Amino acid sequence: MSFTTFMPKALSEARAAAARGEVPVGAVIVSAEGDILAMAGNETREALDPTAHAEMIAIRRACAAVGSERLTGCTLWVTLEPCPMCAAAIAHARIARLCYGASDPKSGGIETGPRLYDHPNLHHRPEIIPGLEENACRDLLQTFFQSIRFQRDTNKS
Amino acid sequence: MSFTTFMPKALSEARAAAARGEVPVGAVIVSAEGDILAMAGNETREALDPTAHAEMIAIRRACAAVGSERLTGCTLWVTLEPCPMCAAAIAHARIARLCYGASDPKSGGIETGPRLYDHPNLHHRPEIIPGLEENACRDLLQTFFQSIRFQRDTNKS
Repeated sequence: MSFTTFMPKALSEARAAAARGEVPVGAVIVSAEGDILAMAGNETREALDPTAHAEMIAIRRACAAVGSERLTGCTLWVTLEPCPMCAAAIAHARIARLCYGASDPKSGGIETGPRLYDHPNLHHRPEIIPGLEENACRDLLQTFFQSIRFQRDTNKS
Repeated sequence: MSFTTFMPKALSEARAAAARGEVPVGAVIVSAEGDILAMAGNETREALDPTAHAEMIAIRRACAAVGSERLTGCTLWVTLEPCPMCAAAIAHARIARLCYGASDPKSGGIETGPRLYDHPNLHHRPEIIPGLEENACRDLLQTFFQSIRFQRDTNKS
């Protein structure tokens, strides 16, 4: 399993999310055999659903694909450190490995803040591989938020 | 707003979940005006979806009902202390008030474990009112799990 295969697909989902006006985060779930089970980008604005983060949609799609509420042996690739909601959902789904791009000091739930997987009542802790294609993942987010701020400031003036 | 109105409805959703073989947790979301926007029970097994906790389904339904990804001014009534996934979703949805029944020392995310709302990167902290109809909420869960253990032990012997 190589990050040169799957993280570019997650980045592609993130770019597609940005094009729809969503925060550019993308996720891909891959089976133990290396098959892609689900791909998703953020849809919170379009779906008017605060739970529609890329990871959540990908988990739900992958569970539907395999016909199980457990994604045992699967790997989740995501461009940004998951928030506490997504981190807990990853544990609920028993995902084996979490590979992510940029850290999220403001809203992340793994390296910062509640550090969810440090608590025994999560019942499952995936293997964690952070920092994959970190610059590309972070640049995409920074460009998106700079663009929003520019638009907001332009509208003000 | 009184817990004698809404917690019994959440309990009714929890009982309906138990009858479907789901962990008996129920949730109700009520607008600032006192209107019920959504009700739900757990559906993780039936839907094969590890994110389908009562609170998550209720949040998604309420957002669809009001046409917004924010549930500003709303109250969430739920029979069990939310897990970290649901607690974070409550923050994402900007729910104003969280009223719950039984505590959940093993899997909760508010009073125990990661204590999500103690961390600034949650960005929103609802008012919290715990312990409402606590005995009824806890008894329902205990009876359900005792029944599961009895069935398992009977099948073993």
